[in-house]
Amino acid sequence: MTLFDEEAAAGDTPARCKLVVAYDGTDFRGYAAQPDVRTVEGVLAEALEKVLRRPAANLTCAGRTDAGVHAWGQVVSFDADPDPGIVPDRLRSSLNGMLGPEVVVRSVEPAGPGFDARRSATWRTYAYAVLNRPVPDPFLARYAWWVPEPLELPALRLGADPFVGEHDFAAFCRKGPAGSTTTRRVLSSRWVAAEEGVLRYEITATAFCWQMVRAIVGTLVDVGAGKIRPGDLLRILRSGDRAAAGRLAPPQGLCLWDVGY
Amino acid sequence: MTLFDEEAAAGDTPARCKLVVAYDGTDFRGYAAQPDVRTVEGVLAEALEKVLRRPAANLTCAGRTDAGVHAWGQVVSFDADPDPGIVPDRLRSSLNGMLGPEVVVRSVEPAGPGFDARRSATWRTYAYAVLNRPVPDPFLARYAWWVPEPLELPALRLGADPFVGEHDFAAFCRKGPAGSTTTRRVLSSRWVAAEEGVLRYEITATAFCWQMVRAIVGTLVDVGAGKIRPGDLLRILRSGDRAAAGRLAPPQGLCLWDVGY
Repeated sequence: MTLFDEEAAAGDTPARCKLVVAYDGTDFRGYAAQPDVRTVEGVLAEALEKVLRRPAANLTCAGRTDAGVHAWGQVVSFDADPDPGIVPDRLRSSLNGMLGPEVVVRSVEPAGPGFDARRSATWRTYAYAVLNRPVPDPFLARYAWWVPEPLELPALRLGADPFVGEHDFAAFCRKGPAGSTTTRRVLSSRWVAAEEGVLRYEITATAFCWQMVRAIVGTLVDVGAGKIRPGDLLRILRSGDRAAAGRLAPPQGLCLWDVGY
Repeated sequence: MTLFDEEAAAGDTPARCKLVVAYDGTDFRGYAAQPDVRTVEGVLAEALEKVLRRPAANLTCAGRTDAGVHAWGQVVSFDADPDPGIVPDRLRSSLNGMLGPEVVVRSVEPAGPGFDARRSATWRTYAYAVLNRPVPDPFLARYAWWVPEPLELPALRLGADPFVGEHDFAAFCRKGPAGSTTTRRVLSSRWVAAEEGVLRYEITATAFCWQMVRAIVGTLVDVGAGKIRPGDLLRILRSGDRAAAGRLAPPQGLCLWDVGY
């Protein structure tokens, strides 16, 4: 058994690949590679280089998650250059054997030469989990924000509505490079009650600003606790003032759930 | 607000307390205290001593779980000596504030003076999670045994039956101190299919031998994979020979689920 399909190997043209990757972000300093720290992109690039026997070119992802943030449906694209005739399931098994339990390649697919995990994406969905019980849970400590004070689900739901549509999210994000826009289009924003005491927020947008979901969730939790009225959210959004919105929710509740193309 | 009810404080008599404790055992060297390593009992005793302002006497647990094994319903008893008039919910909050996310005290209750978490227990239930999918899951890596080869649920279920009743479990445990019995009474043994691809084994017994659940699950997984026939299990059980049974399942799938009194 080889990773590569010897007959299909085309020789000179690069083969673009699409990976769907899940990871527990707890022990990583985020997705994007940085010198001297452990990142998801770092361990992924290292595994790809070992398996392909040369560095993967044009390695790109759909969403550069921050330190401690998780992913279930992160999408990554790269070129195996030149095309070694990759057999997808074998590449997946080899990568998973090398990556260990915290990072898992869920699928490998060939992609067209124009496919780019970041630029081709038309929407991203993030999920955020809040554990709303008086007593915490050691099995959710890595994956949810524990909020002991009771939250009102109807208020959370009312509060989620004003974010839908195209808005300037300056009040709900950390500033990016000078001159970059903070206008984004949110396609859906809703709370779903999962198991007993676990509240799950799901938001889909064409793209997100830096820390946008965590700023929205932090503010909505203040709404659910009665500290901010749902009716004030549109005013806060229009103010463009980060100080007018609520606190930043911690990273461990956040997960890049799905990406559409 | 104080931890203690000043009026109720009885002075000289000790107050026996019952705690229900949940923990993620991944980063502990088991429950039982040992010098120079991090154990659940060690961090619990330390937190109790800080909160009660003296060491907790007669600290005992229902099941001394091994390294990497989790608990949802571990029961612990101790004496606050002399009785400081403990207010249960305040003691719970203080302990949880000190213990951090991996160990959580779910409840605190006063118990009669004769109550002993180990000796008073009449049954224990352990649960074991097997992730049976071709691709692993980073969010279950700490809490389930990933078995990629397909397992037959009907065979697993047939295989679970022979363990019910009173048997010598020498073939399914690691030897304890010389002269100790390996005869135990199993009250129930069954597989439940939880979410997609997650198989959960639950076993209840009056008491368990060392590594007994992991030896049973390792053997049952061999049954589910077609390597051992369900009909051979009674013969293996009767042989009393550990080498006749299957492999030992890894610790991370195991959880002390509930204890009865």
